Amino acid sequence: MNGKTGSLQSLFYPRSIAVIGASTDPGKIGGRPIDFLKRSGFQGRIAPVNPKADTVQGLPAFPTIGDAGQVDLAICAVPGQLAEQVVDDCVAAGVGALVMFSSGFAELGEDGRETQERMAAKARAGGMRMVGPNCMGVATMGTGMVATFHPAFSKVETLPRDGRIALISQSGAFGGLCIQMANNRGIGISHMVTTGNEADVDVADVLAELAQDPQVDVILMYLEGCRDGPGLIRALEIARANRKPVVAVKLGRTAAGAEAAQSHTAALAGSDAVFDAMFRQFGVYRARNIEEFLDIGCALAIGRLPDNNRIAIVTPSGGVGILMADEAEERGLDVAPLPETVQSSFKKLIPFAGVRNPLDMTAQVISDPTLFEQALELVLNETDFGSVVCFLGAATSDPGLGKVLIDSWERVRAAHPERLMIAPGMHPPAVAQELEANGTYAPTEPTYGPRAVAAAWYFAQSFANAVDQPVVARGSRLPSGQLNEIEAMDVLRTAGLPVVSERMAKTADEAVAAAQDIGYPVVMKLLSPDILHKSDIGGVKLGLRDEAAVRAAFDAIMAAGAAVADARIDGCIVAPMIAGDSVETILGVTMDPTFGPVVMFGLGGVLVEAMGDVSFRIAPVDRTQARAMIDEIRARKVLDGVRNAPPSDIDALTDAIVALSTFAAAHADQLVSIEANPVLIRPEGQGAIALDAVVVTR
Amino acid sequence: MNGKTGSLQSLFYPRSIAVIGASTDPGKIGGRPIDFLKRSGFQGRIAPVNPKADTVQGLPAFPTIGDAGQVDLAICAVPGQLAEQVVDDCVAAGVGALVMFSSGFAELGEDGRETQERMAAKARAGGMRMVGPNCMGVATMGTGMVATFHPAFSKVETLPRDGRIALISQSGAFGGLCIQMANNRGIGISHMVTTGNEADVDVADVLAELAQDPQVDVILMYLEGCRDGPGLIRALEIARANRKPVVAVKLGRTAAGAEAAQSHTAALAGSDAVFDAMFRQFGVYRARNIEEFLDIGCALAIGRLPDNNRIAIVTPSGGVGILMADEAEERGLDVAPLPETVQSSFKKLIPFAGVRNPLDMTAQVISDPTLFEQALELVLNETDFGSVVCFLGAATSDPGLGKVLIDSWERVRAAHPERLMIAPGMHPPAVAQELEANGTYAPTEPTYGPRAVAAAWYFAQSFANAVDQPVVARGSRLPSGQLNEIEAMDVLRTAGLPVVSERMAKTADEAVAAAQDIGYPVVMKLLSPDILHKSDIGGVKLGLRDEAAVRAAFDAIMAAGAAVADARIDGCIVAPMIAGDSVETILGVTMDPTFGPVVMFGLGGVLVEAMGDVSFRIAPVDRTQARAMIDEIRARKVLDGVRNAPPSDIDALTDAIVALSTFAAAHADQLVSIEANPVLIRPEGQGAIALDAVVVTR
Repeated sequence: MNGKTGSLQSLFYPRSIAVIGASTDPGKIGGRPIDFLKRSGFQGRIAPVNPKADTVQGLPAFPTIGDAGQVDLAICAVPGQLAEQVVDDCVAAGVGALVMFSSGFAELGEDGRETQERMAAKARAGGMRMVGPNCMGVATMGTGMVATFHPAFSKVETLPRDGRIALISQSGAFGGLCIQMANNRGIGISHMVTTGNEADVDVADVLAELAQDPQVDVILMYLEGCRDGPGLIRALEIARANRKPVVAVKLGRTAAGAEAAQSHTAALAGSDAVFDAMFRQFGVYRARNIEEFLDIGCALAIGRLPDNNRIAIVTPSGGVGILMADEAEERGLDVAPLPETVQSSFKKLIPFAGVRNPLDMTAQVISDPTLFEQALELVLNETDFGSVVCFLGAATSDPGLGKVLIDSWERVRAAHPERLMIAPGMHPPAVAQELEANGTYAPTEPTYGPRAVAAAWYFAQSFANAVDQPVVARGSRLPSGQLNEIEAMDVLRTAGLPVVSERMAKTADEAVAAAQDIGYPVVMKLLSPDILHKSDIGGVKLGLRDEAAVRAAFDAIMAAGAAVADARIDGCIVAPMIAGDSVETILGVTMDPTFGPVVMFGLGGVLVEAMGDVSFRIAPVDRTQARAMIDEIRARKVLDGVRNAPPSDIDALTDAIVALSTFAAAHADQLVSIEANPVLIRPEGQGAIALDAVVVTR
Repeated sequence: MNGKTGSLQSLFYPRSIAVIGASTDPGKIGGRPIDFLKRSGFQGRIAPVNPKADTVQGLPAFPTIGDAGQVDLAICAVPGQLAEQVVDDCVAAGVGALVMFSSGFAELGEDGRETQERMAAKARAGGMRMVGPNCMGVATMGTGMVATFHPAFSKVETLPRDGRIALISQSGAFGGLCIQMANNRGIGISHMVTTGNEADVDVADVLAELAQDPQVDVILMYLEGCRDGPGLIRALEIARANRKPVVAVKLGRTAAGAEAAQSHTAALAGSDAVFDAMFRQFGVYRARNIEEFLDIGCALAIGRLPDNNRIAIVTPSGGVGILMADEAEERGLDVAPLPETVQSSFKKLIPFAGVRNPLDMTAQVISDPTLFEQALELVLNETDFGSVVCFLGAATSDPGLGKVLIDSWERVRAAHPERLMIAPGMHPPAVAQELEANGTYAPTEPTYGPRAVAAAWYFAQSFANAVDQPVVARGSRLPSGQLNEIEAMDVLRTAGLPVVSERMAKTADEAVAAAQDIGYPVVMKLLSPDILHKSDIGGVKLGLRDEAAVRAAFDAIMAAGAAVADARIDGCIVAPMIAGDSVETILGVTMDPTFGPVVMFGLGGVLVEAMGDVSFRIAPVDRTQARAMIDEIRARKVLDGVRNAPPSDIDALTDAIVALSTFAAAHADQLVSIEANPVLIRPEGQGAIALDAVVVTR
């Protein structure tokens, strides 16, 4: 558990807050939280600590934290060089949690990092949690507990309303910005936490805590990097077990972004592709920008999760309906045709309506608004589609028509509480608010309807398939360094992968004997731990059909090996020539600096190499995740068999991925990398077989 | 020219408007345009036509259009069955243009289509342009000319301001919705046109006209389908020649959307992939949804086009800066490092700032706002980066800080008029309006900054590379039907493609003679117009090295051909065995129902077949477009040489695409399809060669 102790209850639900470095000026960093707390309705005790003042902003001040009585949460707003003393004093005073605004630590260099680690160690030893340093603080909207100096909190009237979305951000600026945008968008927020340098409390700690908080339905998480990959995974498992969707913005999607992120944050960036795979593996929805971050959060907080991926689209505008259908299909939803009964019933109502799906009510719905409720009831009563998205255009602005439509909608909404129902439209703010309060997500942009359904369906699947990462027992000792091919293939065999049976030969006679045992035709390859691409130097001979061919190949391969300066030559490998249809794949293991052992899958061949068409997961993976890896590659169709080729043995491939990943997890402390290449996947029922491997251990 | 005549000046800038079927009720379809026109400041004459009333909504009414004096524009708001008479009357009265709201035509079936075509023919014969039927009308915002019944125009105060963005929509509902969203977003609109059934005036006509209108800077175009592909292309060429960016929403991106679009619109859908390629070819930016449609339009109307794709990102929040850098790079912009001089100068101002790019001013800019102008001037004076995106956070809401920052920005903006400068932020509406009025696009979402730069750069490139489609003279007569391989290869040779020299042989002796002429080794293939995939039936033999092999191959191939029932067998082909490094590609021609001859390019091989990794263009293409086709495929890197392979002869491939596309355009009336497969692309300087082809003519 990382040496961290103590829950974060004192942080989020303090009965008393002390501000150390309290300023009488409500505009100063040490003055703002007091000003904010006074105006935001916080009901607990506020204790300014200031040795030079009797009162601060009208409140009695205390010379030291030790004089301030029982303090659940202390805010440290003193200059950085005084901060360590504050930690000591708070521990001595029995403070539950400390939020440290002070900066000048790891963000400035090694000295600062040492100081910050010392402070964290002291806090832990004293049973106190610490947020920061160099953070903008914490807020719990429902209790007016705003322990922050971010100007976003300076006006109560521009604060977002209390809600059920928690916002966790490594960046204070980003957190504050989201608070302001949430207010603009009318989104309710439960908590905001900025974690800054994360000397003690990090994003994962906050996530784990808030995932168990009954006030929280959805968690928005902004990440620049991650210091503790396994900790983050554990926190995500808690969130998933509690059915709390996690939506993330993570920096560094591109090389330019990754480079900037690396220099911006003290945290290790790791590979973004691995991070992205980890998000999919543990059910995090990754948003592209702040708009999507907040909007998906809002949709999830309001809506239900659909039972299936079939979506009904209802619209008064054919064009907008089709725009939504395009978006839905592109995001993996099923715009299935409505049942014939629905189609024919609706055709009776509006003969010229489009009825397949989208259901196009046409402008008729303006002349006869009762069509609206009939359309919705038809769709909901006669299908089991998990979601309905109905575009309302600008109709809800109309005092007459709008009321009829909204009343119809609310009746249907109430009668079908199990469905995910979304109503995009140009709603006046009050209408959108009413709709959202009653459980209907109501964005302005019509395509955000299907986008939100896709996000909700993503979480529905993730929650249904939730399996915590199994703990894998530490494995046996492996040989160390760069292994030769015989050793490498032994490692795969130990891992439980099917490997070709091959024999080592140090002389031509041994090669001939091996070939006779194996049966012609055979393949022969140079055996050397120092030469990776044997075929490039003439170290591989295929289709050898008799003794003479084997002898000639042995001599040629040995000569080719001898021509490579300083390469150790261990002999030759003799292996059976594998014939018949098969698809070449590559399975690999690498060690990610953040998340440890990562398993990789891709198809072999030059095209895939040119396109980087591979998938990743954090090891170990179960069969569901292994199948997801297989399904994720763009050239997936090749495994179904193209151009008369038979379908490949996906089960065997799945088994191989699971086995390799489990082995990688068991030997994480010894492994540097594994590449099994090629692994031939044979037709269905005929299995898979690894032909070659490179294994590097520590 | 499609039989269409007459400019659309009477439509957009009428001095007098008659409303036929004028209603005294301002809420009725025949009453609304009069009501709207009266309240929207239209300065021309409004002439209600109503045989039963002396006055309509306070205006003197006329019994017939013939009594109404000189009428530039007439609106037809009568029931469908009376519409044809209105056309006759308007032509007789010398009306310049007619907007027909009336419905019940092609959208209902064949009878309606015939009536509508008859009306269009009458209008054309009479020198009158007609919009609709079944449309919601036309508006020119600058003159208050609102010839529409869409409720979006019912309140003057919710209309978008007069601006420089024209909106053309096939759907009235969509057009009205955009008007309402434009008002919400504060976007200025010059014209709105809904084209409905497009019996005469279609989207292309309107586009061509507005592309030459000095009131218009940007054109937004909503398409469900297209009846006249070549006409649309001509209109896009006019827009490009006039440097008017065109942004499109086009339905039917996915199978679900295409199916719905097909049933929704009377127009032919064609292939969305071809439409998408046409957009790229003629410089149309395709938006994914309404938000992007309007937002990119707004950005283009406000901003300049950048001189290059280098983007400088300036930010007070490291995180948001990186988010913008990710977006920029993902959209093909170059987040190039700032010059060392800029980096070191800024380090002197803020020692701990990130300076590479993004330039992170940190929260320091809040304490010292003069840093802002210094940062901007450094970036603009010491780089030639085409664009600068500066995130302003919520700072412009602050009365003090905000004013300093805005004043700084405006000074810098004025001093560097040639740069594209964008300032995303949580601006109060008045600030955003001021910024946009002074030439700064100011969206709320920070990533929309780089998104807009990418769109502007797209148009900068498109305008710089603008070449109109050349007119290709009609080509010579081709043999008809499904050609055999010898004939097909002759077609390629005629087209100017390099093809392998091959010989036909009807006997084994002829095959041997051919092989001796060509030189061993040779390839032999069955020659039959009825068998497409010869290798699947054993009809191809490779690497034949001597006479015996050729004779055996001849017999085997003939036997394989004879085993296919009803297949005509023309003999055997003998061709040289092409050796050495090369990349297999496929070049093709298909006939698109909307745009005619389309040229296709892809890499050969099973993986690409599994992924559909191909590119399209409307034929003919020049070298620039051919290069764009080559660069567009995902597996592009293969042509650079992967795994020790040499780079391919891209010039030869480019030549082949240009030649094939020109041939396709010249023979568009005769061709059904061409597939040259494989076309081997050899290493640089060694050319390309087509080995096989299938050609089908009418």
